[in-house]
Amino acid sequence: MSLRTEFDPIFYPKSIAVIGASANPMKFGGGFLSALQQFGYKGKIYPVNPQGTEILGLKMYPNVKDIPDPVDLAYIMVPSHIVPKVLEDCLAKGIKGAQILTAGFRETGEEEGKKLEAEIVKIAQKGIRIVGPNCFGVYCPSSGLTLLPGYDFPKESGPVAFLSQSGGYAAEICNEARAWGIRFSKVISYGNACDLNETHYLEYLAEDPETKIIAAYMEGPRDGPRFFRLVQEISKTKPIVIWKGGLTKAGSRAVSSHTASLAGEEAIWNALFRQTAAIRVSDLEELIDTVVALTHLPKPEGREVGVVSGGGGISVAASDVCELAGLSVTHFSQEIQQQLKRILPSAGTGVRNPVDVGAPIVMPDIFQHSLEITSSAPNAHSIIATQAIFYLHVLSKTLGAFFPSPDDFIQTLLDIPVNVKKECNKPIVMVLPVGSPEAVMVDAEKTRREAMSHYLNHGIPAYPTLARAAKSIANVVEYYEKADGH
Amino acid sequence: MSLRTEFDPIFYPKSIAVIGASANPMKFGGGFLSALQQFGYKGKIYPVNPQGTEILGLKMYPNVKDIPDPVDLAYIMVPSHIVPKVLEDCLAKGIKGAQILTAGFRETGEEEGKKLEAEIVKIAQKGIRIVGPNCFGVYCPSSGLTLLPGYDFPKESGPVAFLSQSGGYAAEICNEARAWGIRFSKVISYGNACDLNETHYLEYLAEDPETKIIAAYMEGPRDGPRFFRLVQEISKTKPIVIWKGGLTKAGSRAVSSHTASLAGEEAIWNALFRQTAAIRVSDLEELIDTVVALTHLPKPEGREVGVVSGGGGISVAASDVCELAGLSVTHFSQEIQQQLKRILPSAGTGVRNPVDVGAPIVMPDIFQHSLEITSSAPNAHSIIATQAIFYLHVLSKTLGAFFPSPDDFIQTLLDIPVNVKKECNKPIVMVLPVGSPEAVMVDAEKTRREAMSHYLNHGIPAYPTLARAAKSIANVVEYYEKADGH
Repeated sequence: MSLRTEFDPIFYPKSIAVIGASANPMKFGGGFLSALQQFGYKGKIYPVNPQGTEILGLKMYPNVKDIPDPVDLAYIMVPSHIVPKVLEDCLAKGIKGAQILTAGFRETGEEEGKKLEAEIVKIAQKGIRIVGPNCFGVYCPSSGLTLLPGYDFPKESGPVAFLSQSGGYAAEICNEARAWGIRFSKVISYGNACDLNETHYLEYLAEDPETKIIAAYMEGPRDGPRFFRLVQEISKTKPIVIWKGGLTKAGSRAVSSHTASLAGEEAIWNALFRQTAAIRVSDLEELIDTVVALTHLPKPEGREVGVVSGGGGISVAASDVCELAGLSVTHFSQEIQQQLKRILPSAGTGVRNPVDVGAPIVMPDIFQHSLEITSSAPNAHSIIATQAIFYLHVLSKTLGAFFPSPDDFIQTLLDIPVNVKKECNKPIVMVLPVGSPEAVMVDAEKTRREAMSHYLNHGIPAYPTLARAAKSIANVVEYYEKADGH
Repeated sequence: MSLRTEFDPIFYPKSIAVIGASANPMKFGGGFLSALQQFGYKGKIYPVNPQGTEILGLKMYPNVKDIPDPVDLAYIMVPSHIVPKVLEDCLAKGIKGAQILTAGFRETGEEEGKKLEAEIVKIAQKGIRIVGPNCFGVYCPSSGLTLLPGYDFPKESGPVAFLSQSGGYAAEICNEARAWGIRFSKVISYGNACDLNETHYLEYLAEDPETKIIAAYMEGPRDGPRFFRLVQEISKTKPIVIWKGGLTKAGSRAVSSHTASLAGEEAIWNALFRQTAAIRVSDLEELIDTVVALTHLPKPEGREVGVVSGGGGISVAASDVCELAGLSVTHFSQEIQQQLKRILPSAGTGVRNPVDVGAPIVMPDIFQHSLEITSSAPNAHSIIATQAIFYLHVLSKTLGAFFPSPDDFIQTLLDIPVNVKKECNKPIVMVLPVGSPEAVMVDAEKTRREAMSHYLNHGIPAYPTLARAAKSIANVVEYYEKADGH
């Protein structure tokens, strides 16, 4: 039996028993059942709870064994000491998969929790596979599954899979996906991984035709050597982006309280990132940034980057952050510099690279020509351009009479990188700084977020800082270098 | 003559000649004149331009020498090749200080620019001091001075001085100051520093009774050895926070195009930060964060931190970022853990440190007790607490009926750290994550920014990420350790 068939009851269940269902949405069992309904799961849902006869329009069963029809998957959210009994019932009912959302097992560090977890592992071995315990479960838009807190997660599928030992981060990435234009094939919060672990999921995702990019938040693998081999093999064809939590001493102690994992030696993780094409990221932000960049950017030809921004200080900072990220900012040829000189004012600008257009926002024709000339430079393998959209809100106040229509002006500016991208076929990444985080400036933030969406919709990653833009490009370059065996 | 008296014409001028004034606000000379008026400079303003007789209600003079009254300060923004002639006129008029905003001098790297700069230095030596050239000038709210683009900068003075070789960053920090509750004594954009340089400004700020904290963006000092000695001396009593731009090779090349400075060897900068109490920051964000923390936090007793947050993954990440920032997260005593166990649900939470309250947002009484118990722990020299305010906007949609009044709920949550701070007298820093950057979620961002202001108004720094909170505390600890001679 292939993994895809074996895992069908978990990722594509035709019917689900929700054991511990409750009418109170402040309780796990209540929130989850309503989330599943609202998200639009199309299969049969059977709430199970010894108390009550009906819930949210569904007939309630006192025990899973009372359900008259076959059931593929059980969601279990009863208190931990009852879980073994419930799991035995599921096994007896012929259910093939169980997501155990309940916490209170090995991660407590206490004897009772460890004993309970050992019990459920034994039951699993008799013929039912477990996701969890101590997790938020599986989000799989194409089968209508969602995480515990996921009533309004995006309903469309996409090419990204996210494996997470943290339920919180699994939920957070689904929430943020919308803003970043990321859509998921599967998000799997797998908690303590007492039965199914990272290696099973990874193997499954390698085969999964929906999945093109795999991202993961990991605290500690259950089967390190096999995990290492799988990453080595799979990352050659599907990019794997890993955020490893708990590399410091204090982090490693927190890992043991959270998912009872062994955080592992830093040396082993360093070896993994050296010997495989997996990309290391250091937080959820960088993970999302990197997935966005991998999704949109063509393969860069090298590490040299051309930068277009406004302000001498920003040119210095851009050079520093690019170099620190592992990219390279080298001077343009005299020819390119001459072309830039012809279009830029002579004082207060810079043509060597970074191109300093002289102000945070310039007239569209200057911006367009700067971008076109920069993208034609042979030592610009990628382009980073900044646009201080928020600054227009400041300008339009000062220069009201001279600047009557900021919206049109912004739209004209936003269209330029989209058009340049079509012509040059090089990776282009935009930087849209946030500006002052005042409550009264939140309109400027709205405009900025709309600009970010505009770029993402046109296949251009857009980040709030130069550092994030540079790191994302560097991660993409690194992936292709490693996957191509450099 | 003390520096304070010598610099009076520059920081507290009774009259200003604006040479190169223009009626067009899109030009430097026009924007600046109107900014100075709008900002509310109370002294006399004399616009100077051979063309025109009146501008913005002020009589125009063809030459500075035609002004009948004495003039303290000249703002010069005529094209670079005319600057020497204009500066000679100022000298002849008896003006003691000139801010030369014009670019096109030594920073161009070309012979003509270098020659022009040498000329103005010679004129300065005859008895007029120069700020700049290639700068945005001085912002000094107590005397009504503002930067080139600063018509609406905050009008109140405060304890922070910012020295900047970048005009752009000088303007940006003034714009962001409002959001962060930072108010300035002086912001000095000094560009090429051809006459007055970092050492003069530093010495002046050391004596300035308005200035309690000195922050700086520096590309390269003009007088390195003297700068080093001054930092060593002054940082013992006034914290000095320095962002050094251009430490990488590419950054150093950009520095030479920007302000014609020598970026300097990294080894020398490392020695500076090792041998003085100056705090090194790596960008404007960290500079602002650190100034905010230095402003509000009492001296921490050590590097150990107690963390209160919601989610096991966040506990792992918090441990990692604190440790990487140079702080220490150690387990609480059994006594503290027992106290926490009594108030927290038994499953899905953590009591060792970080305290995992189990969810991004919890009921106020749980949050309050967690914070009180944590702040009583002897190994919590500082406290970091997270509040995912944005998540309430998600919750209030799901749980409408159970959660009728999110505004009251938020206010109750926001008051808790303020009250705990009053009782414990330990540094408390809040983390208010941004959540999903969707345009439609901008209301949640507004609420978050209001919460940030609330905390800042009550002397509690609030940052959007754990990493920024941890680094800010670490920088404050480091300052006191170095200033106290540890």
